Order: sequence, then structure tokens, then C-alpha cells
Amino acid sequence: MKLTILFGGASFEHEISIVSAITLKEKLSSFDLSFIFCDQDHRFYLIEQSKMKATTFSKGLHKKMPQLTISNDAFVQKGLFSSIEHKNTILNLIHGADGEDGTVAALLDFYSIKFIGPRVNACVFSHDKRYTKWLCEAKNIRTLRYEILTSSVHKDISIPYPIIIKPATLGSSIGVSIVREESELDYALDTAFEYDSSVLVEPFIEGVKEYNLAGFMADDKMHFSIIEEPQKDEFLDFEKKYMDFSRSEQVLKADIDGELTHRLRTNFERAYRGLFEGSLIRCDFFVIDGEVYLNEINPIPGSMANYLFEDFATSIEMLSNSLPHAKRAKVNYEYIHSISSAKGK
Amino acid sequence: MKLTILFGGASFEHEISIVSAITLKEKLSSFDLSFIFCDQDHRFYLIEQSKMKATTFSKGLHKKMPQLTISNDAFVQKGLFSSIEHKNTILNLIHGADGEDGTVAALLDFYSIKFIGPRVNACVFSHDKRYTKWLCEAKNIRTLRYEILTSSVHKDISIPYPIIIKPATLGSSIGVSIVREESELDYALDTAFEYDSSVLVEPFIEGVKEYNLAGFMADDKMHFSIIEEPQKDEFLDFEKKYMDFSRSEQVLKADIDGELTHRLRTNFERAYRGLFEGSLIRCDFFVIDGEVYLNEINPIPGSMANYLFEDFATSIEMLSNSLPHAKRAKVNYEYIHSISSAKGK
Repeated sequence: MKLTILFGGASFEHEISIVSAITLKEKLSSFDLSFIFCDQDHRFYLIEQSKMKATTFSKGLHKKMPQLTISNDAFVQKGLFSSIEHKNTILNLIHGADGEDGTVAALLDFYSIKFIGPRVNACVFSHDKRYTKWLCEAKNIRTLRYEILTSSVHKDISIPYPIIIKPATLGSSIGVSIVREESELDYALDTAFEYDSSVLVEPFIEGVKEYNLAGFMADDKMHFSIIEEPQKDEFLDFEKKYMDFSRSEQVLKADIDGELTHRLRTNFERAYRGLFEGSLIRCDFFVIDGEVYLNEINPIPGSMANYLFEDFATSIEMLSNSLPHAKRAKVNYEYIHSISSAKGK
Repeated sequence: MKLTILFGGASFEHEISIVSAITLKEKLSSFDLSFIFCDQDHRFYLIEQSKMKATTFSKGLHKKMPQLTISNDAFVQKGLFSSIEHKNTILNLIHGADGEDGTVAALLDFYSIKFIGPRVNACVFSHDKRYTKWLCEAKNIRTLRYEILTSSVHKDISIPYPIIIKPATLGSSIGVSIVREESELDYALDTAFEYDSSVLVEPFIEGVKEYNLAGFMADDKMHFSIIEEPQKDEFLDFEKKYMDFSRSEQVLKADIDGELTHRLRTNFERAYRGLFEGSLIRCDFFVIDGEVYLNEINPIPGSMANYLFEDFATSIEMLSNSLPHAKRAKVNYEYIHSISSAKGK
């Protein structure tokens, strides 16, 4: 199967996108893969498979590779006398801004390029943690209580310590702090506001049970990964997550009963249906006093959560055969014709 | 002031976008205007001002005009020997799909082109009427009760007749029906499902008071239009709305007291702030038993609701001087550098 991995982006998660792409090169080695890199200035480059290593990008060597432009139906490589069109299905692997905020989805849809990844609406409801709360509210999915602070409006936090402070739109734990007492608050807020003008405050629950589940829709049916209980040192900081994005060994199933498995899947499906079609997402859940809470939706999880799937390559192939099409309205100028003829023009 | 009006799009509202653009040619005649047409196949054309009439497009004459491609910082007109860059601020006047669903916003942001119009998040919460309900819920703005039907899941409607049936994502009353009794329901649903796979059902309230208010943020302050009580024959059907998009005479203020004016503005601002910055929107309200209900947010209203503003040209100029910038993360390859040096590479 042919597949093009699109990675990079003008994002705080640019580097982990590179790590993700390198990981998928191994995990999807049975595919006929190609790679398109989006640099921080939004230029596209076609990267030779043998050059898919981190230093290619950190040393700027990608600039010597063929530049591409995006055009109707294809990424185009312009030559002196002719152009080459790259028309494979794209796997959007740009984490964070560009990839997960709806930009790349809109771009690929506009140019009628088939892709695996969250569509615009799905991005808005998962990239911004405030809107994930609204989604869950509407879909009857439990989440932790929360408050929003903005850099312009300061207000007292009514959630008792310890609390967790998160920039509204960043992933990969960037800018996230646990605050145990008031004296630590200002520093944590300054850190978070460096990344976003809106910040989410939630209770921090010591030793909470956490479960990660990935899945996707294909042939109008949900397909789930195994459920993992992530091993973590409180929560993963950016450097640990960074390494985490290169995960490729399959993990062990969490030791939970069928009933909890069913409830985690039910909550996942409630969030997914009608919104995330076309994408493979990972939902991170808490279980508190026997109740399931959705913590986060990762619409483009690190290395596509390959380590959670028993047969990752087949999963990606199934998904790529079930992609939604962006519908286009047909214009027939009916009204203008009728008005023009009424005017006798 | 230089301004480029972008109009057309692959949308059911393609033709009314043309009408809107022609209307703005007159209303912004004090500006140095140019026009970019997006056809239904997503090709861009530069349209000479003298050719800005409906028949140019219905007869396909635009195809003889210079084609543009979108590129970093500019729309580019490629010549045989050199290229011309068009770098003006854009006014996004594509109604419906493309313009109001986040596509054009993402495209212009991706290529760092300044524009007047709703950003991606704002589009998602106004283009899809379901998400407008979620927004209003979260922002404490009253709306009518509603139910969602999808083309795959049929269920009984519990709202008593008469009801109004609306496709979730269409504007300009396309696909909208009033249903007074059950015998009319199937036809109305068939009509709505032609345009969208999700349909909103709301109570239809005979003779309800309706008020339209437009506004925008500039210099961190809200600027409001006058409030209009639209004269309507139950509700405007598409053909009437179509004509409505060419409105250019200023309307009379609704005869309401200062207190209601204040409440309408407060509700408008609640919806706008933190989401619609960069755009001039029109909110349509109902007043029922003295309470204000938000009916609809038009993030790119027909002919930019010019007829509601006392000085429309100045309003557009103020707005264009207060546009938000899309922030770009700077990539310094810190993590890749540190990992590479730890590995001794």
C-alpha cells in the first residue's frame, strides 16, 4: 500500500513529529512509504527514505531536497521541463499546531487530497481542552471539574490544591505544572501563559488510575486497540514524552475486567462518532471511585499509538480504505440565470 | 485603503457570495478594491473591477482572467517571465462551505495572509448550528430547545408542532422548512437531508419578535451596528434571501428601549469575545416573554450587513487595523541537538 507521511509543522511539537515519523518508518515498513516534511515556514519538502533521521532536519539538510507545492489533487514537484505529481493518501502526523488545530485538515480537504487524520471540526474539539469539555458535556461523557484563566482576566481559583495547570491548546505536557500550594501558582501560570493565552485548571488527583485506549472507525464499525495502564512518574514531562513518541514495542494489556473495558470503549465511541471519522485517535481516561472520566483526546497520538495495536499496519490499511470524502456543492448558476433572463440580459 | 474581496467558493451559497461581492463593490467604493474569485473547483481568478457582474461568472467568462495560486504571504499571478504578488488584506466573503466552515480561514492563516473574517474555531461554532448550541450553553446565552436528527438514526421528535427543520450547517435558509403537522414532516426532512446528514429541530414560534445586530471588535473594544427588526414573511426563503444579500440601503433602527438594546449587545459580546476576533458578524436574536434568545450567528453575513452600519467603510477600515495574527511556534531543534550530542553524533 502507498502512503505518504506528512510531518513537521510550525508547532511546539515539531520535533516530536519528526520522531513520530521516524518511528512509523519502521512500523509501516511493509508499506510503500514516502515522506513530506513541512518546515516551520510552511514550505514542503519531499524527503528520501534513507534521509529520514533527526539530524537531517536539525542540520537543515532537508533544504537540499525537492520542494513541493500543494495543488488540486496532489503535492507537486516542479522540474525545469515537467512536474511530478504526488497523489498518495496522506497520513497527517503533524502534532500540535497546524496538524491538530484544523489547519492541515482544511488545506488537504480544500485541495481534494485524501488523508488519514482528524477533520476540521474534530481538531477544534480536541486541540483546545476547553472545547473538549464542551464536547463531553454535550455527549454525556464525564470529565474532571475545571476552571479557565486567561492572561487578561485574573481570578481566584476555587478548586482546592493540589491542582494541575495546562495551556488550553498544547499537547505533550508542554507548559503543564502540578501546583501543590499557592506559593507555586504564579510560576506555574507564567509557564502556561508562555504557550497560550488561556489556561485550564483542574484538580490533581494523586495516584489516580489512568487508562489509554486508541481506536478508529472503518466500514462503519469501531476498531479498538488494547487498553494500557501507562506507567508514569506522576505525569510525563516533555522530555520523557519526547522519548515516548518513539515508542514501538507493543505494550501489555491493562489488568481490568470486561465490564470496565466495555465502559471505556463506550465512552470512546461516544466522543468519536460523528466527529473523528477518518482518524485514529487515542483517548486518555481516569477511573475515580469506579467512574470513567475522559482526560484528553489525542487526535494524532505520538507515533499513532502503534504500540497499542496488535496489527498496526493492517489497522492503518483498514482506516485508509474508509476515509470520509469532503462533499462539494455543485454550482449551476440557477439563480443568476433566472434573474438575468428576467432582466432580459 | 487597499482591500481584496475573496468570494465564490464550492458552496450552496456560491451565487449569493457573488451578489454580496457586487454589493460591496458599491459600498466600499472609497477603497482601492480588488477581487479574487474562487470557483467551484477551487481555482482562484483575479477579476477586473469592471467585470464584477453576475453574468461574468454564470457565463464562465472569469476563466479568461488571470489565474492565481496561493503561496506564502501572497496570491501569485504567474507570468511567462515574472510573477506578480497580490498582498492586500483579504476580506473573506465566501458564504457557507469553504468560507464559513474554517477552510478559507485555515488556508489564509497557513500562508500568513492577513484577512477579515472568522478564524477556524469561530467558524466551527457558527457554521454548524449544533455547535452554536454548545457555545451558547457554555457562555450562558439562551437559545431555543432543540433536537438533532441524523440521516442514519431516525427517532421521534418530542417538540410539539409547529416546528422548524434546519440542515445543521447551511445558511441563508437553504433546506429550511416550517412543519405544522406530522403529515408535512417527511417531505421537510427529505429536503433538509439533501443538504446535510444532520438536521436541527426547534419549536417554530408564530409572530416571534426578531432582532438583528452586527458588530466587531477593534482596539479591544466592541463596535455595534444599529439593531434592526427584520420585516419578514414568516421566514425568508432562499430566493428572498438571495435578493437580501444585495441590500445596501441603510435600515431604520428597531423601536426598542435602551435596556433591551443593552441586553442584546451583552449577549452578542458574550458570543463574540475570545472567538470571533478579526470578523464582523451578525447575530439574529428572538425576544420571547421578555427574554433574549440567540437564534443564529452569521460569521460572514450577506453583504457584510453593510446596511446596519452608519459608516460601513470606516467600520471595515477599523476592523482591518485590528486583525489577530496567527502565532507561529519557533523551532530550534533543542531536543534533537541534545539527543544527538548525547549519542556523540
